[in-house]
Amino acid sequence: MTPAAPILLTPGPLTTSLRTRQAMLVDWGSWDDRFNQLTASLCEQLLAIINGSHTHHCVPLQGSGTFAVEAAMGTLVPRDGHVLVLINGAYGKRLAKICEVIGRRFSTFETAEDQPTTAADVERLLKADRSISHVALIHCETSTGILNPLSDIAAVIARHGKRLIIDAMSSFGALPIDAHTIAFDALIAASGKCLEGVPGMGFVFARKESLASAAGNAHSLAMDLQDQHAYMAKTGQWRFTPPTHVVAALHEALLQYNEEGGLPARHKRYANNCQTLLDGMARLGLRSFLPAAIQAPIIVTFHAPKDPRYDFKTFYERVKAKGFILYPGKLTQVETFRVGCIGHVSSIDMHAAVTAIAQALGEMEVLDI
Amino acid sequence: MTPAAPILLTPGPLTTSLRTRQAMLVDWGSWDDRFNQLTASLCEQLLAIINGSHTHHCVPLQGSGTFAVEAAMGTLVPRDGHVLVLINGAYGKRLAKICEVIGRRFSTFETAEDQPTTAADVERLLKADRSISHVALIHCETSTGILNPLSDIAAVIARHGKRLIIDAMSSFGALPIDAHTIAFDALIAASGKCLEGVPGMGFVFARKESLASAAGNAHSLAMDLQDQHAYMAKTGQWRFTPPTHVVAALHEALLQYNEEGGLPARHKRYANNCQTLLDGMARLGLRSFLPAAIQAPIIVTFHAPKDPRYDFKTFYERVKAKGFILYPGKLTQVETFRVGCIGHVSSIDMHAAVTAIAQALGEMEVLDI
Ligand SMILES: Cc1ncc(COP(=O)(O)O)c(C=O)c1O
Ligand SMILES: Cc1ncc(COP(=O)(O)O)c(C=O)c1O
Repeated sequence: MTPAAPILLTPGPLTTSLRTRQAMLVDWGSWDDRFNQLTASLCEQLLAIINGSHTHHCVPLQGSGTFAVEAAMGTLVPRDGHVLVLINGAYGKRLAKICEVIGRRFSTFETAEDQPTTAADVERLLKADRSISHVALIHCETSTGILNPLSDIAAVIARHGKRLIIDAMSSFGALPIDAHTIAFDALIAASGKCLEGVPGMGFVFARKESLASAAGNAHSLAMDLQDQHAYMAKTGQWRFTPPTHVVAALHEALLQYNEEGGLPARHKRYANNCQTLLDGMARLGLRSFLPAAIQAPIIVTFHAPKDPRYDFKTFYERVKAKGFILYPGKLTQVETFRVGCIGHVSSIDMHAAVTAIAQALGEMEVLDI
Repeated sequence: MTPAAPILLTPGPLTTSLRTRQAMLVDWGSWDDRFNQLTASLCEQLLAIINGSHTHHCVPLQGSGTFAVEAAMGTLVPRDGHVLVLINGAYGKRLAKICEVIGRRFSTFETAEDQPTTAADVERLLKADRSISHVALIHCETSTGILNPLSDIAAVIARHGKRLIIDAMSSFGALPIDAHTIAFDALIAASGKCLEGVPGMGFVFARKESLASAAGNAHSLAMDLQDQHAYMAKTGQWRFTPPTHVVAALHEALLQYNEEGGLPARHKRYANNCQTLLDGMARLGLRSFLPAAIQAPIIVTFHAPKDPRYDFKTFYERVKAKGFILYPGKLTQVETFRVGCIGHVSSIDMHAAVTAIAQALGEMEVLDI
């Protein structure tokens, strides 16, 4: 079944290596030493990627990425905190929604979906409202693929003595983030993105001092990262049953990540994937939504063809029949579709995907691109 | 590696079949129709087990079982509700803790760890405090293996017009629960228990009317079952990235569950496992903590040998070296250890486990049992 399965050009779940999936062929006792070692090794390897073992704890959490985002907000923003949420897409909006539901005071600053938030914006906003205690930012806003200028923004926030929470779900592991040069209270990511594990767990890099003083903040038992960390530090175990097979797959994926050459190699492969895709699509006349300067090499949004013979569903099914799964657009104003550049895929696959897209459009007699 | 891996005699994660694990060798797009069908088929098969398709929705949730328990409490108990939590072990205590953290008013009624809650207790408690709106009960309290008399208690609660929430984590799929004869607002279980899937997701059977009127109750975005269900009903998709491989494994495990003969067959196999274990251990002189009448065929608590040469850690390692992973006790007053009867194991495995235990104790020169 495996070789015939389509390649996922989606931003997670994505295509993983057979070796990663095969790591799930073993059952693990969650109480057993060997599994505890797996968890410890995982956290150590994750911390190494951000150069964060001195400053941060890695706290893994069961569930999808959103669970880890909510857990970070609930645990690290005190009940009397005030969060400035920077928005230019669906995941920024979700962050604001989380603040609303869990009852943390928040303000939002929204730019257009093709406009990165700037450090100047943040400077102005922090000056205008001194009650802001935390700023929450989406690093790569996956709803378009836009990259927000993390290090500039982080510098402003640090200068104002405020705390930064980064949703780096779709960028972590591929785009460099160094805890020595970027000050943050929390950075959130998950197993099934650029590390090329399978979905089922997230993790939060939490600044040690902030986590230590976070007892009692959380609105939830299951999502209390302070409690999760304290228990793990004491016992080596997860507080509640871990997704053992997902953990084993992520561990195996990290071994491959390091064998490949770590972040620089992963970044380079994805950047190649992205460039191959952009070049190929441009030859077909398909225009990307974002200018190159703010396009992260993670996922690309393309304008849908103007031709009335185009519809996404047919297009999707035809491309899928040729072996590639695309992703729908997430914009409300413009009709788009998305193609991911991440996962266990190479520029050869991206070439083949462009060919499949060209054939599908040809079959549909879509001429007016 | 697989054949050499030890057999897990633990209450989840547990030993799964190779066929179930092999279902994880494929990557699935979470947006794809085929995956939506998998989810729909999963929910349908789960509802059939409790005969609940007319009365209840099945709402799957990312994360461990505790996440599903917290989600059920947060979603289905209104903010002005009052929960009576029935406790005779660690999971009952956890339920009370969840109420405390998420801010739902609660009262507790605690019996000794070898004493089931009775219907008479519940009758008395409901009469004494009319403000109680919900009763929360652990069906099989896994910390000992004790079975609480669900249907008697449910009848009392129904007679009083109150709502029942059942944590059936370790019993669902093995012990019969029929939604036609037992009235409940929520029944909670997870993938990695008696259905013999891998851990990583839970699910809640929620009474349709209760779920429909639950909008705005939840303390959490990620754990809002009303929102999760509404989105799934509309789109066929999970709200946030599903643990695709865990879902595929559970679906494959359910096919095997039905091929084996469904609940009666699963119950019978586990009951055989349990009896084989109890008989074998009795021959070694090892006494079970609970009398047979209240022992669920899920997990058995044994008194630790009195001999000073016994210690759990050595015992555990020696039994593990012979191919079986045991579980520590969870009682504070008495020294115990636990042996699970659930998972892809048969009475032949239980025989072999008893032999391994006998050998380990012999090697340790533990004579005074
Ligand atoms: C930037 C960002 N944040 C949050 C999420 C949510 O993660 P999940 O779908 O795993 O809950 C995603 C998912 O793609 C994401 O890209
Ligand atoms: C009765 C009961 N409730 C809740 C749980 C918690 O489940 P989890 O460890 O998956 O969070 C368990 C786990 O064994 C259980 O047996």
